[in-house]
Amino acid sequence: MMVIEIFGKVLRELREANNISQEKLAEYCDLDRTYISLLERGLRQPTITTIFKVSKALNISPSDFVLKVELRIKELSI
Amino acid sequence: MMVIEIFGKVLRELREANNISQEKLAEYCDLDRTYISLLERGLRQPTITTIFKVSKALNISPSDFVLKVELRIKELSI
Repeated sequence: MMVIEIFGKVLRELREANNISQEKLAEYCDLDRTYISLLERGLRQPTITTIFKVSKALNISPSDFVLKVELRIKELSI
Repeated sequence: MMVIEIFGKVLRELREANNISQEKLAEYCDLDRTYISLLERGLRQPTITTIFKVSKALNISPSDFVLKVELRIKELSI
């Protein structure tokens, strides 16, 4: 599984944990709803700016977001 | 200063601290030397995949790399 797919899964989990819709998240981040959907499905590469935007909206630091992606990759590599 | 500019500065500092050239870093990451140069000057948006690639080459975890960017932004916001 690729980095962007893991990123997408973590994004969806954090969004659901924050109990907000893709529409709301898109609005908070000034991004398109479709783009959020593509990110969650691992079909787009988030840029560092996007990572900072979605992290802010999801009440997590960008480094903690990336750490979750890292740890998930490690789990899958065992 | 924008996130990508800070990212570029941190990237250059880490590369110099590792004592490797843009050419060598590009080779390790399977990226173009020109692209590394654009990243360091804050002229391109690194994707999460690029962040993982350069972090590996620079012996730092991707989350620690992003943490450095975050802390630098906080310093500048004071």
